[in-house]
Amino acid sequence: MTIVLGDNQYGKAETHVVRVTKNGARHEIKDLNVSVALAGDFADTHLTGDNSKVVPTDTQKNTVFAFAREPMGEVEDFGIRLARHFVSEFASVYRARVSIEEHSWQRIHDHAFVRAGAEKRLATVTCTDDGTWVVGGVGDLVVLKSTGSEFHGYIKDRYTTLPETRDRIMATSLAARWRFCDAQVDWAKSFAEIRRLLLDTFATQHSLSLQQTLYAMSTAVLEARPEVAEVRMSMPNKHHFAVDLTPFGMDNANEVFYASDRPYGLIEGTVTRDDAPEPGLAW
Amino acid sequence: MTIVLGDNQYGKAETHVVRVTKNGARHEIKDLNVSVALAGDFADTHLTGDNSKVVPTDTQKNTVFAFAREPMGEVEDFGIRLARHFVSEFASVYRARVSIEEHSWQRIHDHAFVRAGAEKRLATVTCTDDGTWVVGGVGDLVVLKSTGSEFHGYIKDRYTTLPETRDRIMATSLAARWRFCDAQVDWAKSFAEIRRLLLDTFATQHSLSLQQTLYAMSTAVLEARPEVAEVRMSMPNKHHFAVDLTPFGMDNANEVFYASDRPYGLIEGTVTRDDAPEPGLAW
Amino acid sequence: MTIVLGDNQYGKAETHVVRVTKNGARHEIKDLNVSVALAGDFADTHLTGDNSKVVPTDTQKNTVFAFAREPMGEVEDFGIRLARHFVSEFASVYRARVSIEEHSWQRIHDHAFVRAGAEKRLATVTCTDDGTWVVGGVGDLVVLKSTGSEFHGYIKDRYTTLPETRDRIMATSLAARWRFCDAQVDWAKSFAEIRRLLLDTFATQHSLSLQQTLYAMSTAVLEARPEVAEVRMSMPNKHHFAVDLTPFGMDNANEVFYASDRPYGLIEGTVTRDDAPEPGLAW
Amino acid sequence: MTIVLGDNQYGKAETHVVRVTKNGARHEIKDLNVSVALAGDFADTHLTGDNSKVVPTDTQKNTVFAFAREPMGEVEDFGIRLARHFVSEFASVYRARVSIEEHSWQRIHDHAFVRAGAEKRLATVTCTDDGTWVVGGVGDLVVLKSTGSEFHGYIKDRYTTLPETRDRIMATSLAARWRFCDAQVDWAKSFAEIRRLLLDTFATQHSLSLQQTLYAMSTAVLEARPEVAEVRMSMPNKHHFAVDLTPFGMDNANEVFYASDRPYGLIEGTVTRDDAPEPGLAW
Repeated sequence: MTIVLGDNQYGKAETHVVRVTKNGARHEIKDLNVSVALAGDFADTHLTGDNSKVVPTDTQKNTVFAFAREPMGEVEDFGIRLARHFVSEFASVYRARVSIEEHSWQRIHDHAFVRAGAEKRLATVTCTDDGTWVVGGVGDLVVLKSTGSEFHGYIKDRYTTLPETRDRIMATSLAARWRFCDAQVDWAKSFAEIRRLLLDTFATQHSLSLQQTLYAMSTAVLEARPEVAEVRMSMPNKHHFAVDLTPFGMDNANEVFYASDRPYGLIEGTVTRDDAPEPGLAW
Repeated sequence: MTIVLGDNQYGKAETHVVRVTKNGARHEIKDLNVSVALAGDFADTHLTGDNSKVVPTDTQKNTVFAFAREPMGEVEDFGIRLARHFVSEFASVYRARVSIEEHSWQRIHDHAFVRAGAEKRLATVTCTDDGTWVVGGVGDLVVLKSTGSEFHGYIKDRYTTLPETRDRIMATSLAARWRFCDAQVDWAKSFAEIRRLLLDTFATQHSLSLQQTLYAMSTAVLEARPEVAEVRMSMPNKHHFAVDLTPFGMDNANEVFYASDRPYGLIEGTVTRDDAPEPGLAW
Repeated sequence: MTIVLGDNQYGKAETHVVRVTKNGARHEIKDLNVSVALAGDFADTHLTGDNSKVVPTDTQKNTVFAFAREPMGEVEDFGIRLARHFVSEFASVYRARVSIEEHSWQRIHDHAFVRAGAEKRLATVTCTDDGTWVVGGVGDLVVLKSTGSEFHGYIKDRYTTLPETRDRIMATSLAARWRFCDAQVDWAKSFAEIRRLLLDTFATQHSLSLQQTLYAMSTAVLEARPEVAEVRMSMPNKHHFAVDLTPFGMDNANEVFYASDRPYGLIEGTVTRDDAPEPGLAW
Repeated sequence: MTIVLGDNQYGKAETHVVRVTKNGARHEIKDLNVSVALAGDFADTHLTGDNSKVVPTDTQKNTVFAFAREPMGEVEDFGIRLARHFVSEFASVYRARVSIEEHSWQRIHDHAFVRAGAEKRLATVTCTDDGTWVVGGVGDLVVLKSTGSEFHGYIKDRYTTLPETRDRIMATSLAARWRFCDAQVDWAKSFAEIRRLLLDTFATQHSLSLQQTLYAMSTAVLEARPEVAEVRMSMPNKHHFAVDLTPFGMDNANEVFYASDRPYGLIEGTVTRDDAPEPGLAW
């Protein structure tokens, strides 16, 4: 038997950089949480502690801040610049992956802002000497529809107690990620349109299952946005149970709900187009 | 020596109720996290386990759901109804306090919504047979100004290393609570105006210290809103440190910041008017 | 009408200091999260932004680290040293409060440790020129008893659905704080004994209500530990509901439970001795 | 272009079941957080909302509780029983994955317990008609060594500012997962031994990099435990920075540290044996 080092990567996670751009009195703000992960010729540090091929994670952090000094562009742009730097600069780095969460701020004044919520814009950029893969996304996008959702016709077995329903609340904290066909994209416009398509489809599609909604949302993106090759979604079913008010002599026409934390359904799915380029190292 | 039971209260915390109101196709949604705390003649359950004067917390939860069946009004209205119920219904309950966090949802469709953020509207209602006290508030309101904030002229001692600054980021996660003079208030309008005053003052007042900003924000509310007797604020100083880029041959004109999590400054203050009614049991 | 500044304080919260003491090969470790809050002559910074009486929170942080350079003693000792420093050193500081959370580590080697859990030892020290008040405590101490807990005989009203029970799980995440009669205490021994008394009483006292358990636990401390003047406890009732397995043709003799997150009962109480010194500024 | 449904799964996440076993006065407790994920013939529910092949997540939850009624065994045993049930019972389920987190409780009495900490024992069991794959693990195991860790000899570039060190604190919150060669294992003994090997190696191996420590810990497991085919670890570098006390006229011989939250290094690696069976669907 021989012990073998397999897949490995390392990097600096969650460098929280806030960039203010000042054009006269009116400031712009970008608030990014940046994680870097490098893979490559790192067997020595594992086997002997020889770090001569290692780029310290502290240096990666410094690089994030230094690169933020220049105009950042969209998160995808910033991720591409950073990831390419690490693979081009260091022979030992074969693959660099930069994952970014962007928090939004709403303007209330020339130089004052209020945080827009828990929702995050996401980007993951992976670079090697041979290619660049970009994945966009949105996380913690909490949506709810108060009707237009049914669930019935499912398998019943000895452990089934769930009653069928023709009307329920459907709510989720959406995490969606989409793989771009290439890196030549109007990132800002693409993000805005995809987010709008996701929300519109969630809102207007009559749902017979969370899976159907997931598929419809993904399909809407793929049909309207040719720059997207593949959509992956994770949709926790944030259960809202209609409270039984009959012990108190009251009916409840799907008006009063108990919002439960755990357990929750978790629906995950991938939807792609048949003519999409291969994913390569995107994920 | 004799052992003495002192202040005590109990109740059901964090009943998460979501209320949908359906007027035709267009739905309204209220999302409340309700906590009840009762004080009164509860020595027996402490001393002997005799529960004959105890309203179970499970019953309190049921009551929240049952009361949500009726039109809820604003959170202050709902809190008043609930708190008065407990003191009027049960002889053993001398004081009922209902604390509510309301989460906002933005409409994206007749019956679909997106969660508006981490910000919460707060209300605490305290009732006895003799009175009703209402405290409104807002929590987790994260604001940032990218200039218009200085800090200098402070005490220097042997442990001081902080450089003075004429320009810094000021950011906080505001928790503000305001005591109403009485319970006859247009709650919705009052909340909207107070929130606006807080944000406007934060944005526009040139700041020499977080304390000055806290005082100015509170004063703006008290001067414009006669229904408010007192404002209490807690303002963590969410430090944003300008990154030293000189090792990389770069300047940094307050553009690139590291957002730190811990430790953080914490500024707390109360501002009131001299002709305000006594706080009584409000807090 | 005149606007009046009321109670206010400020300070540096959550300075996370880890202190290693090296006596040869065998190291000791202390892991403290220290928060400082100062009150005093701070009207100027609120009203005009004049900071000439302000000790920056950054300096407070530095002071924590500098004081950690000396032997720290128990958390109460360290809190006393820090709090006294701020009131004695600065004329504008009338009251200093130092709150400390200590995380425990278990030794696995001369210089290696594993974190012992979420439980925290707590201390809050308040100093003025005239006195020192010390409050000890424990937080996030999660305990469960699988029997020996009943709940019945309570008020029933139209909203009551809870069935009475002669046997249930009782579980809580205990936050207990105790006020010391003075500052001349063997802190380490006192903490160990109080923690033991709390756990022993929780485990062995047959409970008819969470309130009775709270009172018994507090009483056990007050009777055995003359250095303690008062005990305050907060006990969330972490509900464990026996799952109804009858739909599956199974009984459930209090063996299979669903552990619920929200809502939860919350029981809070104070127990003191009639000959205790006044609390002063302890809380 | 055609839209294609790709990988998908769904299930009930985080069913929190607490199982008490009562053999006379002395009770045993198991506290599990169970997540189920099913993959199979679920295209219809995505494409048309036809749920006739869907096992509701509510039923999955019920099944967890019903199965907890029987003697549970170790988490791996319980996971195998559950996963096999779903694939054998339902033709539409091709693959069932059951992921379990177990929280530990320390006994303080025959029927009373104190929660042991944040550390979790982990198990993931994946079943198809053709096979069973078992992965064990431990999560949130926070360890620290106060010396015996160096870091130097790394690449320096224009963004490097980190000084080399011959003595630092090394701390991490370990997440380790190990794939078993088959499902015939003494799970309890195996877990105890692997945990011991991980801690011993962390404590005693002199470290030149976190990667070296990761590799040594994994290797220790693989060499001593023939039932383990592969080890995967994630080790965040919980940075402890020695505080510069020179401005206060003090030295700091690696005694006073600031424990930082973000950013953090993140080291991930896989170590396996060359004669190990293929991973199949284990991960």
